[in-house]
Formats: sequence, structure tokens, C-alpha cells
Amino acid sequence: MDIQMVNSMDFGEFVDVLGNIIEKCPLIAAAIWSQRPFTDLADLEKHVFDFIEALPQSGKEGILRCHPDLAGRELQQGTLTPESQREQRGAGLSNLGPEERRRLDQLNYEYKARFGFPFVIAARLSDKATMMRELERRLRNQPAQELRAALHEVRKICHLRLEDILRSPGDPAKL
Amino acid sequence: MDIQMVNSMDFGEFVDVLGNIIEKCPLIAAAIWSQRPFTDLADLEKHVFDFIEALPQSGKEGILRCHPDLAGRELQQGTLTPESQREQRGAGLSNLGPEERRRLDQLNYEYKARFGFPFVIAARLSDKATMMRELERRLRNQPAQELRAALHEVRKICHLRLEDILRSPGDPAKL
Repeated sequence: MDIQMVNSMDFGEFVDVLGNIIEKCPLIAAAIWSQRPFTDLADLEKHVFDFIEALPQSGKEGILRCHPDLAGRELQQGTLTPESQREQRGAGLSNLGPEERRRLDQLNYEYKARFGFPFVIAARLSDKATMMRELERRLRNQPAQELRAALHEVRKICHLRLEDILRSPGDPAKL
Repeated sequence: MDIQMVNSMDFGEFVDVLGNIIEKCPLIAAAIWSQRPFTDLADLEKHVFDFIEALPQSGKEGILRCHPDLAGRELQQGTLTPESQREQRGAGLSNLGPEERRRLDQLNYEYKARFGFPFVIAARLSDKATMMRELERRLRNQPAQELRAALHEVRKICHLRLEDILRSPGDPAKL
């Protein structure tokens, strides 16, 4: 799919295809549809990021709260969005040992209690050891600093999901 | 469920329970969780409505674009959210005659082409004849006027969904 195809979609198709570039926030793709045409992926994602940046702090936190826990209940129950499922499985989170699971549950719990949103990280750019280390490190951030760090991860996830969509389906070498 | 129970929820529970008070926009419930405690339903919904009001026009349109068509593909395929399913079925939209269906498809199409979002109406406060008349009437609105009218319906839908949640589960007379 190329950017011309994306630009030619009615809002129903656009939200069907791009609705989850920000996890469980189709509102954002639906909003930026108003701003077509986009020149390329970078232009499209700039509109997404500008929309997020203009939200009040509660709205930014709201985006984070729409994300699942890393290796949480939804991964175990198979109720993740297809994108999150792929990302978490790919990072090795679907086969944790009992000790890793206990440790991750504990850190997720502490993180959520401290910041009021779940730990978000671009799992596809990481692996389980790195994610665990990052979680421990970011747990020590100040709240405002951590909100920025978490939104930075949201943008990385969005970029990767957009790349998947805009990649030619006829070019398996890139998949 | 009473407002104290709502106030005592962690953000995961809060989004599970209230995530769809604005159709497919859990971001909004997730955002206003930051503003607990709420004194009552009116106070909670005021935070929701204020959040929506502060969005740029594209964001308000985005909310509308997350709504399904009246008696559209999703009703026929059974892929509506449970709330929308109940509302549309209750208003008699699941048993339209062929002529009503043709007419409604045509009006939905014209409406979306004119305004760039689907026709939204609080179906539980209406019936299919009234909805059809309203669709014809609102199709003649100016775009800015219609955006306001549609968001007014979103607020009515939200109010009814919140009433459902806050109603005592032990009091079937109210259901």
C-alpha cells in the first residue's frame, strides 16, 4: 500500500486500516483523516504526533492507559490487539519462565502504582532482558520525565506499525 | 455500581467498565481517570464533555468517525460494540424492510459525503421513523451546525451508557 492509496481512502477504510497505529485509539487516526492528503509516511505520522502533543496531560496519560501490560493478562488470555500480540510474542514475552514472570508482574505493578499508566516500550526494537532492564531504569524516572519517555515509545510503535501498512504487500523481502 | 465504586477503580478496571461510554474512544475514559474522584454521574460526564470540547475540530470529527453507520454493515455482520448493538436493535434497525434499507443506505451515504463523518443519533431515545426524518433534516444543516448537533447526540449516548453503568445491578425494575 502506498501513500496515494492511503490518501484515497474514505474515513471508514482509513480507520479500518490505520485505526490501531496508536494502540486502541482509533480516534486519533479518525481525527487526522481531516488533514489528508499526506505526502509520505513522515508527513502522516507528524500529524499523529502533533495531535498527541496538543492533548492535555490527561489525554496523553489516557493514550498510555489504553496500552496493555507487557506479558500481562491480555497476552495470557489471547485478547491483545493483533499488533500488540505480534510485538509481544516477537520479543519473547509469551514464553517467560516462572521467575521472569514473577519479576515482571512485580515491576509492572510498581510502575503502574508510581505513574498511573502501564509501562510502554517498543517491544519490536527490544528483547525481554532489555525490556526488564528498561523497566527497572524507568521506574526511577520523575513522573514528567517518564511521561515523555513513554510517549516517545508510543511514537516508535506508531512508526513501526505505519511502516508495516505502507510496505508493499508484494515485497515479502521487506516483511 | 455507585460512584464510590467507580472512584475506587484502578485505571485498568475503569477503562474496562467505562471505556466505551464514548463509542470506541477508551482514550477519553482513560484520560478522565486522572480527575477522580467524581461526586456523581453529572460530575463524571462533565469531565468527559469538557475533554471533548477542548479537542480541536479534527478530534471532534474523529470521535464521530469512530461511530458505526445506523443499520450499516456492522449491524448486519454482528460486529457492532455490545452497546451499539443493543441501541440499534432496540430502535428497530435490525428489521428494516428492503425499501427502508435502500432509503437509509442512500441517506447515510449522502450524509457522510457531505459532512465527512457518519450520522450519529441517540437511537434509544428514538425510533426508526424519527431517525430517518432526523437524518433528512440534519442533512440540510450547515457543517459547523451539524458538527454541534452530532456532538450533542454523542453526549446523550454517553449519558445513557453511564446511567446503565451506575444503575444498581440489583434493581431490574430500572433496566
